[in-house]
Amino acid sequence: MTEFSTAAQPISPQQHDVEDTLVETVLASFGNADDERLKFLMRSLTGHLHAFIREVRLTEDEWHTAIEFLTAAGEITDEKRQEFILLSDVLGASAQCIAVNNQAYKGATEATVFGPFFVENAPRIELGGDIAGGASGQPCLVEGTVTDTEGLPVPGARIEVWEADDQGYYDVQYADGKVFGRAQLFSDANGEFRFWGLTPTPYPIPHDGPVGMLLEAVGRSPVRAAHLHFMVSAEGLRTLVTHIFVRGDELLDRDSVFGVKQSLVKEFIEHPPGTPTPDGRDLGNRAWSQTRFDIVLAPSGT
Amino acid sequence: MTEFSTAAQPISPQQHDVEDTLVETVLASFGNADDERLKFLMRSLTGHLHAFIREVRLTEDEWHTAIEFLTAAGEITDEKRQEFILLSDVLGASAQCIAVNNQAYKGATEATVFGPFFVENAPRIELGGDIAGGASGQPCLVEGTVTDTEGLPVPGARIEVWEADDQGYYDVQYADGKVFGRAQLFSDANGEFRFWGLTPTPYPIPHDGPVGMLLEAVGRSPVRAAHLHFMVSAEGLRTLVTHIFVRGDELLDRDSVFGVKQSLVKEFIEHPPGTPTPDGRDLGNRAWSQTRFDIVLAPSGT
Repeated sequence: MTEFSTAAQPISPQQHDVEDTLVETVLASFGNADDERLKFLMRSLTGHLHAFIREVRLTEDEWHTAIEFLTAAGEITDEKRQEFILLSDVLGASAQCIAVNNQAYKGATEATVFGPFFVENAPRIELGGDIAGGASGQPCLVEGTVTDTEGLPVPGARIEVWEADDQGYYDVQYADGKVFGRAQLFSDANGEFRFWGLTPTPYPIPHDGPVGMLLEAVGRSPVRAAHLHFMVSAEGLRTLVTHIFVRGDELLDRDSVFGVKQSLVKEFIEHPPGTPTPDGRDLGNRAWSQTRFDIVLAPSGT
Repeated sequence: MTEFSTAAQPISPQQHDVEDTLVETVLASFGNADDERLKFLMRSLTGHLHAFIREVRLTEDEWHTAIEFLTAAGEITDEKRQEFILLSDVLGASAQCIAVNNQAYKGATEATVFGPFFVENAPRIELGGDIAGGASGQPCLVEGTVTDTEGLPVPGARIEVWEADDQGYYDVQYADGKVFGRAQLFSDANGEFRFWGLTPTPYPIPHDGPVGMLLEAVGRSPVRAAHLHFMVSAEGLRTLVTHIFVRGDELLDRDSVFGVKQSLVKEFIEHPPGTPTPDGRDLGNRAWSQTRFDIVLAPSGT
């Protein structure tokens, strides 16, 4: 990326030597680590850190700004707010870590970011049940199948789903302790599943801290593309953590945490108020939507 | 550094594409930044961060450990403790930033890390005066000249010096508010200077936090090689921030913050108790040491 370089001075061979020697000294300092993996991680991290500093010719003022940024991130972080995870998210590091740990497998559904709002042991619902739990939003019928990469149905797959209400908040973000917008269900003998949820709506990640200031400084929005979270697990198959997104959402190409993958963008068919539902569910003359998500799980260990 | 790779799986072309596409998307997200320098910095930083994650195939557990490390660094940081600076120091990032901003210049004295213990407006002393201010330690006579890179003496150069006592603490680390181990003086008409200080002794950086745990995990000591700090400034010349180190100090090759440069290692001659001092100073039958530091300042703007 030297085409962006704003270095004012040419770098002499003598200066190159000084910088190279320092990098070598730092890398050598990890030589006594007993843990080979830790040694490898620290050497790679340190090598990239030094390469960054040298590439951009980081000024001492910029170094101070970086220290102040990390300090401010530490100050705002507490049990309910995790600014370092937000930082990882907006730099795409969380998404890259998910990508690295969920290697693309021929035909398998793609993984995406986990996010901070999953809760263990969500309420169990039957097929066709409602995950909304009274949350505000437009009803949405979600149907699909779970298969393996050979196309064989996966019966009894555990499907955990969670989403925000149409105010942009998950249940755990309210102080009242109510559970809504999350459930677990199991695919039937044909690998099929269906449930009622809410049509996903966009919401911003917390942006009143240093990460929000960074996003503003680089002209980026804190808003996430509308999405519905899934975690799908079955014996002998790789557990899938993913979302589905809404085709036509104008935020698809600027999701603040880089979770969008084209294969996960789904058609949400909008039905006007009064349209009968396939399962006869009475929605009290409200509009509703409908989507389909066919899930393909990779073999475990891939 | 792929020779250290512990990646268990080959990476398919399809997987490469997924990871490459994510990097491109993240880099493109900074395209709206008005500030070209910030855009360049964020793209370089993000590019290296993703390269690191991909190179080491960072696991999700390791990612969590990194988040916990940064969180713990934030928790221990307050007005008196700066764990993020310590982190930058032990990774050699501080030293590299100093190197980048103080380019090697033919014949000029090398710069090194500034450290957190400098104080503005230290007591002024006359040439030959004492900076120790009653601090415990062995007396040390420091003499030298300040010249430019043409060898011409620099009269009236401001020389600020500071150091720890032989307990390993700077004055500002004590609660009593006393000032010791620091002063400012000016070179004479011939560019010469001399003062009495303390023979430098090694001390550990604060190591009761996450940075100390990291050092322990990789088999590194928190101890700094013994040193005496200098900041030297004169009109028309580049301000020099540096240390001198003690030849024979066994920590020279493992200074915890990578401040040591061979050109800054000086002979400290040890004199037994009772040896007369060159300036007739009465040391009350104590042993003392003597060193010389000839300082060469680069032209300003280099």
